[in-house]
Amino acid sequence: MSVRRPVIGIMGAGDRAPVAALELAEALGEAVARRGWILLTGGRDAGVMQAASRGAKRIDGSLTVGILPDESGGTSPFVDVAIYTGMGNARNAINVLSSDVVIAVGAGGPGTASEVALALKSGKPVVLLDPPPTAEAFFRSLGEVRVARGVEAAVAHAADLLSCFEVKP
Amino acid sequence: MSVRRPVIGIMGAGDRAPVAALELAEALGEAVARRGWILLTGGRDAGVMQAASRGAKRIDGSLTVGILPDESGGTSPFVDVAIYTGMGNARNAINVLSSDVVIAVGAGGPGTASEVALALKSGKPVVLLDPPPTAEAFFRSLGEVRVARGVEAAVAHAADLLSCFEVKP
Amino acid sequence: MSVRRPVIGIMGAGDRAPVAALELAEALGEAVARRGWILLTGGRDAGVMQAASRGAKRIDGSLTVGILPDESGGTSPFVDVAIYTGMGNARNAINVLSSDVVIAVGAGGPGTASEVALALKSGKPVVLLDPPPTAEAFFRSLGEVRVARGVEAAVAHAADLLSCFEVKP
Amino acid sequence: MSVRRPVIGIMGAGDRAPVAALELAEALGEAVARRGWILLTGGRDAGVMQAASRGAKRIDGSLTVGILPDESGGTSPFVDVAIYTGMGNARNAINVLSSDVVIAVGAGGPGTASEVALALKSGKPVVLLDPPPTAEAFFRSLGEVRVARGVEAAVAHAADLLSCFEVKP
Repeated sequence: MSVRRPVIGIMGAGDRAPVAALELAEALGEAVARRGWILLTGGRDAGVMQAASRGAKRIDGSLTVGILPDESGGTSPFVDVAIYTGMGNARNAINVLSSDVVIAVGAGGPGTASEVALALKSGKPVVLLDPPPTAEAFFRSLGEVRVARGVEAAVAHAADLLSCFEVKP
Repeated sequence: MSVRRPVIGIMGAGDRAPVAALELAEALGEAVARRGWILLTGGRDAGVMQAASRGAKRIDGSLTVGILPDESGGTSPFVDVAIYTGMGNARNAINVLSSDVVIAVGAGGPGTASEVALALKSGKPVVLLDPPPTAEAFFRSLGEVRVARGVEAAVAHAADLLSCFEVKP
Repeated sequence: MSVRRPVIGIMGAGDRAPVAALELAEALGEAVARRGWILLTGGRDAGVMQAASRGAKRIDGSLTVGILPDESGGTSPFVDVAIYTGMGNARNAINVLSSDVVIAVGAGGPGTASEVALALKSGKPVVLLDPPPTAEAFFRSLGEVRVARGVEAAVAHAADLLSCFEVKP
Repeated sequence: MSVRRPVIGIMGAGDRAPVAALELAEALGEAVARRGWILLTGGRDAGVMQAASRGAKRIDGSLTVGILPDESGGTSPFVDVAIYTGMGNARNAINVLSSDVVIAVGAGGPGTASEVALALKSGKPVVLLDPPPTAEAFFRSLGEVRVARGVEAAVAHAADLLSCFEVKP
């Protein structure tokens, strides 16, 4: 019998991610994997999803899961388990429900914003990593979020949030 | 053969909607129906969804559609056509894809925020009716939105946005 | 306040529907609309979906709803209310949940089979109209289905099934 | 960089699985894991899903994925990666799209039937393991299926089908 490992969802911009967000995501993916946590992303071969998965796959024994919008294809080569939903952006709800903690990297775009909003709607713990002030102000008005400056702080928040959480079978 | 009527999605807080938002939603639903447009909401018997549908049903010949999160039940009595998705908040993506224009009423909550974000992601026209400043600033940072003060302004924006749009069969 | 009209889902082959199924679907759509019931289909401009909607739109005051697999387009011109799911075949579950009675026309294909199976899984009443013997035998092995020979018999079964059913708000 | 391992979806009855199907599923799950393939199931702690996952977890290095209908909970303890969809039976479409080969065990019920039908609709390779004659006749009428008598034959079919298939990134 296995005891399931915690799942950390890393969300962020896909096609127009700035370089700073990509660098953060790659370091964050690596740090998540080093802790032994499963990394979950949107699975595409682009942006923050790809960078986080690439970072995680530097670590032996890492496990990366991608929840894809399409019926097939477009998958990051750094994803170990690819879940094809064929549901487009409606799959963002699955990303959130399947993560124990959601970490949003940088400014993100509308897709990332929908994921943070859905996480708050579902009561999932959310960490905003280096958010712009408008995003921080808005999400704080919607619910409880933690704000981290830097990868180490984000991982520390995730560890703390996981410790309050028990995997239900 | 029928020519499809335009569909206006009205989104807003469900369970904790303030009175001001409910009043706006009811007047907006009535104004949308008076134009001959189909009203689309999340369909539940609560909050902005219910208020907008109630307003619309004051108009003869109005048509109200609700896209519900559950497999059955919980439906506003002011909804003519109830679509049961059984998909929870993932149905928010359907609300947006099925609306020709999305109007968000007041502050909304995280569910409404996810709908506005998904609308921007999908390139759907968005009108924010009396948004709080933090929401306006955030959504303007994500993409193109129109901001309306008052129901008449929101309807005028919707009419203008519809005129740029052609129903594809 | 409105009292919702019953919703009858007509399911059947899309792209490769035989002529006999199209003729049945058109007559069935018309008979459903004549009863004052809302017609629900998969909404595409093809096959049984289109034929049933065309039949329904011959009746004054008819209302046709289509639940589409794509994010936009491909819609039958005989559909009054188009719901765009962007979910591909996963929308078949919504077709079934949103119908009070599901009627499958003729042999159908794998899509229709999935809808009948999902209806049985969800406890929705199912009528098979002129099914081939293999389909009838298989679905009878899965659960309770009614088998109708001809459009009038299918409509009579639907009326009977609706009388056992109360719309929940 | 990782090269993704093939994913075999094992489908079958949940709550009312006969003992023979459970025994087949457990042996099949073990055989799938022994080949180094990822096992994908509906993830619940019941029936064929659970039995197949239990069998797989006997093998060192096995990886079991569950695609669950609910937003949380109800998960088999033999599932390593739990994907919570909150979509009910609509998640059956995801099970199929995310599997490289779908194997249906025994008679199944309506849920399994919907998965086989959706697999045929999507062009996914299907193996029926010890199907009853009515199911075999019906699915053969819908499309191309392979029929296996016994676990070894099912695994041989899967291997053959995988050899015709290339993982697309």
